[in-house]
Amino acid sequence: NSGRAGATHGEFSRPAALGSDVSPGLCRCHKVQESLLSSSSGYSNYRGILNWCVVMLVLSNARLFLENLIKYGILVDPIQVVSLFLKDPYSWPSLCLIIAANVFALAALHIERRLAAGSLSENGGTVLHTLNLLTILCFPALVVLMVSSVTPVGAVFALSIYTILFLKLFSFRDVNKWCRDRAQAKAARAPSGPKRANGDVAQSEVCYPANLTYRDMYYFLFAPTLCYELDFPRSPRIRKRFLLRRLFEMVRAFPALCLSCWCVAEIDAELCFQDMDYSRIIERLLKLAVPNHLIWLIFFYWFFHSSLNVLAEVMQFGDREFYRDWWNSESVTYFWQNWNIPVHKWCLRHFYKPMIKRGVSKWTAQTAVFLASAFFHEYLVSVPLKMFRLWAFMGMMAQIPLAWLVGRFLRGNYGNAAVWISLIIGQPIAVLMYVHDYYVLNYEGSQ
Amino acid sequence: NSGRAGATHGEFSRPAALGSDVSPGLCRCHKVQESLLSSSSGYSNYRGILNWCVVMLVLSNARLFLENLIKYGILVDPIQVVSLFLKDPYSWPSLCLIIAANVFALAALHIERRLAAGSLSENGGTVLHTLNLLTILCFPALVVLMVSSVTPVGAVFALSIYTILFLKLFSFRDVNKWCRDRAQAKAARAPSGPKRANGDVAQSEVCYPANLTYRDMYYFLFAPTLCYELDFPRSPRIRKRFLLRRLFEMVRAFPALCLSCWCVAEIDAELCFQDMDYSRIIERLLKLAVPNHLIWLIFFYWFFHSSLNVLAEVMQFGDREFYRDWWNSESVTYFWQNWNIPVHKWCLRHFYKPMIKRGVSKWTAQTAVFLASAFFHEYLVSVPLKMFRLWAFMGMMAQIPLAWLVGRFLRGNYGNAAVWISLIIGQPIAVLMYVHDYYVLNYEGSQ
Repeated sequence: NSGRAGATHGEFSRPAALGSDVSPGLCRCHKVQESLLSSSSGYSNYRGILNWCVVMLVLSNARLFLENLIKYGILVDPIQVVSLFLKDPYSWPSLCLIIAANVFALAALHIERRLAAGSLSENGGTVLHTLNLLTILCFPALVVLMVSSVTPVGAVFALSIYTILFLKLFSFRDVNKWCRDRAQAKAARAPSGPKRANGDVAQSEVCYPANLTYRDMYYFLFAPTLCYELDFPRSPRIRKRFLLRRLFEMVRAFPALCLSCWCVAEIDAELCFQDMDYSRIIERLLKLAVPNHLIWLIFFYWFFHSSLNVLAEVMQFGDREFYRDWWNSESVTYFWQNWNIPVHKWCLRHFYKPMIKRGVSKWTAQTAVFLASAFFHEYLVSVPLKMFRLWAFMGMMAQIPLAWLVGRFLRGNYGNAAVWISLIIGQPIAVLMYVHDYYVLNYEGSQ
Repeated sequence: NSGRAGATHGEFSRPAALGSDVSPGLCRCHKVQESLLSSSSGYSNYRGILNWCVVMLVLSNARLFLENLIKYGILVDPIQVVSLFLKDPYSWPSLCLIIAANVFALAALHIERRLAAGSLSENGGTVLHTLNLLTILCFPALVVLMVSSVTPVGAVFALSIYTILFLKLFSFRDVNKWCRDRAQAKAARAPSGPKRANGDVAQSEVCYPANLTYRDMYYFLFAPTLCYELDFPRSPRIRKRFLLRRLFEMVRAFPALCLSCWCVAEIDAELCFQDMDYSRIIERLLKLAVPNHLIWLIFFYWFFHSSLNVLAEVMQFGDREFYRDWWNSESVTYFWQNWNIPVHKWCLRHFYKPMIKRGVSKWTAQTAVFLASAFFHEYLVSVPLKMFRLWAFMGMMAQIPLAWLVGRFLRGNYGNAAVWISLIIGQPIAVLMYVHDYYVLNYEGSQ
């Protein structure tokens, strides 16, 4: 920045061709140029606007906090908070579920070990893996639906862990299968012996069967990625200052997140117990939309930037691309491809590309990816709330026509604005549906 | 953007060195890289965040508007709005003042003509110009203070026009003087005749005395700049689409501006008629700070981007640099140098550099610029309100220690955040002081 300013100042003080001592200001002080905010200027450095957003967010939150404190006093009841996670203090079903997840990971590892040793046929392995993966999805859902002491928040947490485990083990199985296929192909093509002299082949330091250890498995399970690789790129050391800064952000953002959630919950509660006319519903929807969106943004930063970076730094995991520049996305597709890179990478590597390879058309494959994503969204919402309404599923599926519409009619900054509006308005509509139905189901009957 | 995404996708589909047909996913899918939001990534394209701000602003305003409509109905009284500008419908003092401004501009032109013709001595010209400029400052102030039918809004408008005229004529006089000085120096150095063959000299197409026409003078008076030049750079043609887009923005932003002003005025009114304790004052200050700041931002965009660009496009004025990237400013000085380029250019060319030339130290010159700026701020606020409180003056002068503090202790994103906070919090404090005193003076006595 200072370089740029210096250049422009320098221009003023440029000595004129003639008589610079007599007429200091006579050199031209205007030149033909565009304003920075005009799209034709090509300027795009708005780092300061990001800081502005953070400052505004902190100030607004502080004000809201102070206002609520003055109006109502402290409303948050610690017992109420705990009761979000626990119904019965002597039974911890969500925690038990999470601990039980280890069983499935170890099962997958042992299947792979026997496959590598040759004591299990390829088909037998596929059947066992499929069973294992299906159980990972069904078992926690059944537990949540059957055990009455599971709270919705605890259930969401446990089901998220299981979903992540499912995706990771799916990738684990695929990569190991690819390794075996490659080894076979190599053996078939070059039976004269290993061509280790060729530098290209030594792309992974760890060779196939050597990766099937507990250590390797648990590194993968905790690593902030869903795609298995034999040898993850590692960062050379743990940068203490970086770690502290991210930890500080993580700690700082978390209460903001909780606080905002609580504010929204209050608005929601207010919202659902009244019969309202049309204009009032729109007004309330807008009132809900903004804090809801802010929560999503804080959550995004807290999870994808702070938390995953802390985890990666501690594990010396090298690849920190957890998101790309989705804030500039000018189409809905670009947004979905860039906001959640771990999931996007997984979908591309283990779902989209294998389908394309089998001759499925691009469009069908894309729709299938959205369908799978919609299924998991629904799974993570409906099961914990014990309420099957398909709003989340429909919300995800609505992205396909939306993507088509935005891509067809809008581009540039208008496309970007459309993506933002769909985020700001679309989410709270889905949230509102669930919250409304949940209150009607659980509270209205009892009053 | 799409290029970037394409590159990353391409990477996934890169064929592996060996057996690409068997193991499609075995090429590395992770690599060592930083998250985009980490400062070490060096990434700074946040154009989308700007769009986000606009979308949020529009949505929040729409909600606020709807809420107020539901709560209070339509409060804006058209007669009340008109009464902001006019007290007595048969007397239009502000408009008369603005029309009278032509006299001073023509006076300056005629002084220059006589100076160019040699029928007035250099000293006589200086005296006449000084008198003319002093009258430009004092005459409207006296009228505003004496005539009772002037409203504060009308007075601010008229005084702004006069201040701009003052700065423009100051520049006009300076540049013409430099031209005469140069002509003299040229005549003294090269009495053999004009060296027109030298390409360097022909930097301005219009030569000195030929510029002293009514046409040239009025082009300068309406042009969106404060610095006079013999030959302004011109854009080749009026771009109709660009003009329409800016006009649309101008028209769209104006009601938003008015609406926000009205909301703040309501908050202010609520604020001033109550005795409040300490925590409530802070809460109210924060409540005022955010919309106040948003008004300033909308005003900035409306005036510096939309309006000045419309004016420039219509006049085919080439230089559209009305602001630089002040949103990234990491020091208070950088902010003041970049948010208002017309004034900054004027200060640099006609105030700071001449002072430096006369041997004044850099620091003193800078302080003097801030003093002059503080004087004009106070002039534009105190005279229309008929209330001399020096809050604006002190606010401007407080920038000097603030600049020192921020520059000394903070840099990078922290410095940027400090600048934003000083903008968001600093302004409403000054505004609050005036509003409070104005209400106490004008309304409390009558109740």
